[in-house]
Amino acid sequence: MGYPETAEGFMVHDHKKWTEFKKGEFKLKPFEDRDIDIAIECCGVCASDLHTINGGWGEAPLPLCVGHEVVGKAIKVGDAVKTIKVGDRVGVGAQIQADLTCNNCKADQENYCPNAVDTYGAPYKDGTLSQGGYASHIRAHEYFTFKIPDSIESSVAAPMLCAGLTVYSPLVRLGAGPGKKVAIVGLGGLGHFAVLWAVALGAEVTVLSHTPAKKDDALKMGAKHFVVTNEEGWEKDLNFTFDFILNTADAMHHFDMKKYFSILKVMGRFHTVGFGDHPIPTLMAQDFAPNGCYLGASHIGNRPEMLAMFELASKQNIKSWIEEIPISEEGCGKAVQRVSDNDVRYRFVLTKFDDAFGKRS
Amino acid sequence: MGYPETAEGFMVHDHKKWTEFKKGEFKLKPFEDRDIDIAIECCGVCASDLHTINGGWGEAPLPLCVGHEVVGKAIKVGDAVKTIKVGDRVGVGAQIQADLTCNNCKADQENYCPNAVDTYGAPYKDGTLSQGGYASHIRAHEYFTFKIPDSIESSVAAPMLCAGLTVYSPLVRLGAGPGKKVAIVGLGGLGHFAVLWAVALGAEVTVLSHTPAKKDDALKMGAKHFVVTNEEGWEKDLNFTFDFILNTADAMHHFDMKKYFSILKVMGRFHTVGFGDHPIPTLMAQDFAPNGCYLGASHIGNRPEMLAMFELASKQNIKSWIEEIPISEEGCGKAVQRVSDNDVRYRFVLTKFDDAFGKRS
Repeated sequence: MGYPETAEGFMVHDHKKWTEFKKGEFKLKPFEDRDIDIAIECCGVCASDLHTINGGWGEAPLPLCVGHEVVGKAIKVGDAVKTIKVGDRVGVGAQIQADLTCNNCKADQENYCPNAVDTYGAPYKDGTLSQGGYASHIRAHEYFTFKIPDSIESSVAAPMLCAGLTVYSPLVRLGAGPGKKVAIVGLGGLGHFAVLWAVALGAEVTVLSHTPAKKDDALKMGAKHFVVTNEEGWEKDLNFTFDFILNTADAMHHFDMKKYFSILKVMGRFHTVGFGDHPIPTLMAQDFAPNGCYLGASHIGNRPEMLAMFELASKQNIKSWIEEIPISEEGCGKAVQRVSDNDVRYRFVLTKFDDAFGKRS
Repeated sequence: MGYPETAEGFMVHDHKKWTEFKKGEFKLKPFEDRDIDIAIECCGVCASDLHTINGGWGEAPLPLCVGHEVVGKAIKVGDAVKTIKVGDRVGVGAQIQADLTCNNCKADQENYCPNAVDTYGAPYKDGTLSQGGYASHIRAHEYFTFKIPDSIESSVAAPMLCAGLTVYSPLVRLGAGPGKKVAIVGLGGLGHFAVLWAVALGAEVTVLSHTPAKKDDALKMGAKHFVVTNEEGWEKDLNFTFDFILNTADAMHHFDMKKYFSILKVMGRFHTVGFGDHPIPTLMAQDFAPNGCYLGASHIGNRPEMLAMFELASKQNIKSWIEEIPISEEGCGKAVQRVSDNDVRYRFVLTKFDDAFGKRS
C-alpha cells in the first residue's frame, strides 16, 4: 500500500507510554470531490495532542497519530474544490469536516456542528478514523483547508491553525478592541497568541501569570501590564477592571475563581480555552453575583475567523514564537514531554518532514 | 421611643427558630436630606428572607426584621428629595443605598456598587443596621424609592420590587424580545415573573419545571411550551434551541448542568437568579465547550430597569400572582414556612399593616 490509500505517521499505541511514538501506516478516508490531499511540511504540537495521547481527556482510539496544526502543499484536489489548487501552500486546523447543512453550520458556527469531525481520533462516516499531522499526508475537506498567506512562513503559520484560532475567535466575539481592557491568563502556546492578537486588535492587555520570569516576554508581545497571581492580594487593586478574561491555562482546578470574578466588569466574562484534566473548583451560584459575571468556554473558531486571523497576522506581520524540532520518533516524544513540563516558549513545531517521509510531490 | 427614632417590626432572634417572629422595636438610621420615611402598607415575602433567617446563606445579624418588597406611603421627605413628595405611594426593593459616585454607579450599575447597602441586615455608615419591611416604617434613600403607578395595586406591586426586578433585569440585558427563544427554569415567585415579563417583551417562552402540575399556570401566564425536566431525555429534542436560560430555582445542586448547556444556542447563557444553600455540581471547563456557552448570575437590577418594569406592568396590565397573609407573628411564620415548603402560588404578600401597627400618618 502507500499513498494515496494510506499515509505514514508517528503514532502512539498506549496511553501509559505516551512519549513513545512509532512510525507506522494508517488508512486515509475515501477521497471525495471536495477533498484535498496535502503533503505535510510541518505540524505544531498542541496541548490537546498531549491530553489525548496520555488519556487525560479520556480513552482515545489507539494507535493514533495526533497533530492538528498542519501546513503543507496541496498535491491533489477534488473536482468540486474551488478555493485551492494543486501546488498551493495550505493549512489544516483542529476540525476537518462538518455537515455544512445544519443550523449551526448555516450560522457560521460549523465548529459547533453536531456532525463535526475532529482532525484526529474521530470516525468518518465510512468508519475510517481521522489521523493527524505528525504524518506524511492528510486528506482534508476544502472548507477546513486554508491557503496560507505568502508572507507567513510555514512553521510560523502552523500553530496559528489551532492555538491561534482558538484564542482569536473568543477575542473577536467578546469584542477585543480599542477601549477594551482584556486580561489573558497564562502565557503559553495559547496565551502568547492571545496577547499578540488582543494587542493587534487594539485592546489594553494585562497578562496574569504565576511565572514572574515571563514578564519580559509578555511586555515584548505588547502587554501593558503583568500581574503575578501567586502573590497574596494580587486581585485587590483590580476590582471591576476587565471587560473580559481569556484563560489559556489548563490549571483552573488551582484557581480561586472568586478572585478572578472580582476583577471583571459587570456582566464581564471569564472565558476559558484551557481545558485541564481536573474539575473547576466548586462554585456557589451566588459566587457570580457580586460582579454579575459569567464563566464559559469555546471550541476553536470558524472559517471566517481563520481567514481574518491570517489576514491580521499578514498585515501586521505578527509572528508566532516557536521552537522547531525535526520530526522523528524521538522528536515527537521530546516535544510532548516538554509540553507536559511547560518547557516551551511558546510553541513547538515539528519540521523537516522530507527527512522523515521523503519528497512527496 | 418610637417613630421617628425607631420603628416596630416582626423579628427573628435565632437561626434555629426561623419561623418564630416576635414583634419588637429597632433603631432607624439618622435621617439625611435624600431620605424618605415610609409608613408601610404591605410587604412581599422573598426566598431571600428565608435563606437569611434560617442561616442558609451564612450567619445574619440578629435580631433581624426581613422583607424587601415594601410598599407604603411617603410620610416625610428630606430637603434634597426631588422625585417623591409626602403622600406618594412608593416602593422599596432589596437595595436601599449606594455611594452613587463610583464607576459602577455612574454606569447605571448601582446594584453592583461596592458600597451598596442591602435593605436589611447590612450596616449603614453610622453603624445602624438596616431593617426590612415586615415593619411599621422604613427609611429609604430617594434613589432606591420608586413611585408606584396608580394602576397597580399595592399588594400586586410589592413582589415586583425584588422578585420582579431580579428577573426583569437579566431578561432585558440578555435581549428577551421578538424572535428570541427563552427558557425559564422553575415556576415560583421569581419564575412566574420571568414568564410574565419575557412574554410581555415578545419572546417565545418555554418553562422547564419538575412539577407537571404547574403546566396550566405556565400556559396561562403566556408560555408557549412546558417541559418536565424529571422525564428521562427531556433535553434531547432541544439541542441548540435557546438564546438563553433564566434559572429561578434554588436547587441547581440537583441539576445535570451538561443537559442544560446542551439546549443553549452557541454563546448562549445559563443565567441564574436562584441562589441555593448548596454548591453547583462539579464542572469541567470543557463542559461549556460543546455549545460554547456561559454560566453566570446577576444581583437584582438598577433604577432605570425598575422604572421600565413598572411602566411595562402598567401599560400591559400585568399582575403578580399572589396570596395575601395579614401580618402578625403567626402570619410571618406561616409565610416563611410555606415558602420553605414551596407551597405558594406564586408569592406571599403580608398585608393589613394598620391592624398590626395602627394608622401611621
